[in-house]
Amino acid sequence: MPSPADLLASLRRGDPRALGRAISWMENGHPAARGLLAGLWPFLGGAEVIGITGAPGAGKSTLTDQLARALRAEGRKVGILAVDPTSPFTGGAILGDRIRMGRVAGDPGIFIRSMATRGALGGLARATQDAIDLLDAAGFGTILVETVGVGQDEVDVVACVQTCCVVLVPGMGDEIQAIKAGIMEVADLFVINKADRDGADQVEREIEAMKSLSPPRAWDPPVARTVAQQGTGVSALLERIREHGQYLRQGDGLALKARERARLRVESLLAEEALRRARAAAGAARIEAAIGAVAARTLDPYSAVAEILDHS
Amino acid sequence: MPSPADLLASLRRGDPRALGRAISWMENGHPAARGLLAGLWPFLGGAEVIGITGAPGAGKSTLTDQLARALRAEGRKVGILAVDPTSPFTGGAILGDRIRMGRVAGDPGIFIRSMATRGALGGLARATQDAIDLLDAAGFGTILVETVGVGQDEVDVVACVQTCCVVLVPGMGDEIQAIKAGIMEVADLFVINKADRDGADQVEREIEAMKSLSPPRAWDPPVARTVAQQGTGVSALLERIREHGQYLRQGDGLALKARERARLRVESLLAEEALRRARAAAGAARIEAAIGAVAARTLDPYSAVAEILDHS
Repeated sequence: MPSPADLLASLRRGDPRALGRAISWMENGHPAARGLLAGLWPFLGGAEVIGITGAPGAGKSTLTDQLARALRAEGRKVGILAVDPTSPFTGGAILGDRIRMGRVAGDPGIFIRSMATRGALGGLARATQDAIDLLDAAGFGTILVETVGVGQDEVDVVACVQTCCVVLVPGMGDEIQAIKAGIMEVADLFVINKADRDGADQVEREIEAMKSLSPPRAWDPPVARTVAQQGTGVSALLERIREHGQYLRQGDGLALKARERARLRVESLLAEEALRRARAAAGAARIEAAIGAVAARTLDPYSAVAEILDHS
Repeated sequence: MPSPADLLASLRRGDPRALGRAISWMENGHPAARGLLAGLWPFLGGAEVIGITGAPGAGKSTLTDQLARALRAEGRKVGILAVDPTSPFTGGAILGDRIRMGRVAGDPGIFIRSMATRGALGGLARATQDAIDLLDAAGFGTILVETVGVGQDEVDVVACVQTCCVVLVPGMGDEIQAIKAGIMEVADLFVINKADRDGADQVEREIEAMKSLSPPRAWDPPVARTVAQQGTGVSALLERIREHGQYLRQGDGLALKARERARLRVESLLAEEALRRARAAAGAARIEAAIGAVAARTLDPYSAVAEILDHS
C-alpha cells in the first residue's frame, strides 16, 4: 500500500496503476482520499472535459474510442471515463474495462476506467468528478466522459463537462425520443451516429424541431454526422467540439461551467458527509431499531428519521 | 388549499384529485407531507406492488396498461406509477400523464401518475415510496410501478416492489444486454414482450444462460411471453405474478421485502433530512462562499465541505 505522498508523486507522473488505485480510493471513500485530492489540487491544469451521452445502442463506446484515437494523433494524452449506472449488481463495468482495454492496449497515452454505481447516494457523480481531477492532475489534457444519459447521477455528471455531445441514431422508437427531450437542454452538440442508415435526415429534422421549441441559447448546438465504426466524420466532430471550446473561452462560459461544477461537487459531498456524520452520531443500533419499527408499521418513516436525528 | 385532515379524509375515499395533490406534496417536500404520511400510516392495507422494468422501447407502458385492464376485470382498483428519470428538464412526465390518461379516461378504478426526478438527492425513489403508501391507503389493491430500469434511483425503486418483472424484447443490441445483466439479480419474472418478432427464442436462451451463471435462488424466475399491443399472454403473465406472490406469502419473503423497503425508506429520508439540517445550520452564504473558493481553485471540495460543517 503506497503512502498518499508516494501515490501523489506517481499520479503526477501519470502512472496508470497509481491512477487506478487513486480512483478506487475515491469510489470507496478511502480515508486517505480526501488528503490525496487536497494534495493534487494545486496541480490541476484545466483539462478539456468532453461528455459523450446518449441512449443504449447509440454506439457511444465506439465513437469515444475513435475520438480518443484522433486526439492521440494530435499527441494529447486522453482519459476515458465510462459512467455505467447499469452495473451496481454484476460488476459489468470491470468486464467492460477488460474488453475495451484490449482495444487500446499498449498505448500509455490512453487511460480507460469504468465508473459504476456502488449504491452510495450521490456516489457515482462525485466519484466521477474526483476521477476527472485525478486525470487532470496526472497530465491528461483531454478527458472523455461517456454516459448512458438517463438517471439523476448522469445528469449531474453531464452538467459538469465543458462540451456535452448527445449521440442519436436513426430508427429508434418513442421512448428514445423521450430521452432525447430530457437531455436536449444540456446538449452543446448533437451527433447522428450510424448516419449511413436510413432515417438520418429524419433524426436531423427532429433535432431541428426540438431546438426550435427550446428557449433560444447564445450557443446554437450544431449537428454532426458520424459512422463511428468506420471512423467517418470523427475529425469533423472534433472540429465542432473545438469550436464550442473556443466559444466558451471567448465569453464567461468556462467560468460559469467551473462554478456549476464546483456547486455540484460541494453539494454532493455535503450530502455525503452530512449523512456520514448523522449515522455516526446516531449509531447503527438506533437506526436498525427505527427500520424495524417502520417495517412493523408501528412508526412512519418521517417520524422514524426525526427520532434518529433528534435523539442522537 | 385543503387542510391535512381534509386531504387525509379525501384520500381514504380514493379521491383522485386528493391523491394527485398529496403526491405533489411528497414530491415537493411540502411542510405538511410528513404529517399526512404519519396520519395515513395506520390505514396501510398491504397492497400488492408489482414492478415492470426494462429498457426503453421494450413496450413497458403498453404492458402495464394491459395488466391494469386485466386487474380491473377482476374488480381491483389499480394504481400506476410511471417512474421517469428522463424528465428532469422538460416536464416530459406531465405530457406522458396526459397521453396515458386519455387511454383509461373515465375509469375511477385506475389512477396513473408519472414520477419524475426533480433533482433532489434520493428524491425520486423516496417520492415513489411515498406515492405507493398513498395509493395503498386510498384503497388501491394493486400498484404497478413502471421504470426504465437504469440508474440508482430506479434500482432503489425496484428493490422495494414485491414482484419485479423485467421486460425484454427480441432484437436489441449489446448495451441492452448490459442492462439486462444489471437487473438480472432483482428479476422475479422475465417477460419477453413483442414475442411475435423474430428472435424471441434467442432472448429466452440468453435469459436461461444468464440464470445458469447466477447464484441459485430459492425462487427460479419464470419466463413469460407477451404481445402487449394485442393483449396476448397478459392473463398468463398475471398468473405467474400471482404464483410469485403465493411464494412470498408462504415463506418469510413478504417480511423480508417489508424490511428491505423500510431500510431504503429510512435511509433515503435520513440522507435528505441530514442534508436539510446541515444546510440550515450552515446558511446559504457560507455554502456559496465555499463553492466560490472551489471554483477559483483556492480550496479543494473536501476541505470546503469540512469547513461548512465544522464552522456552522
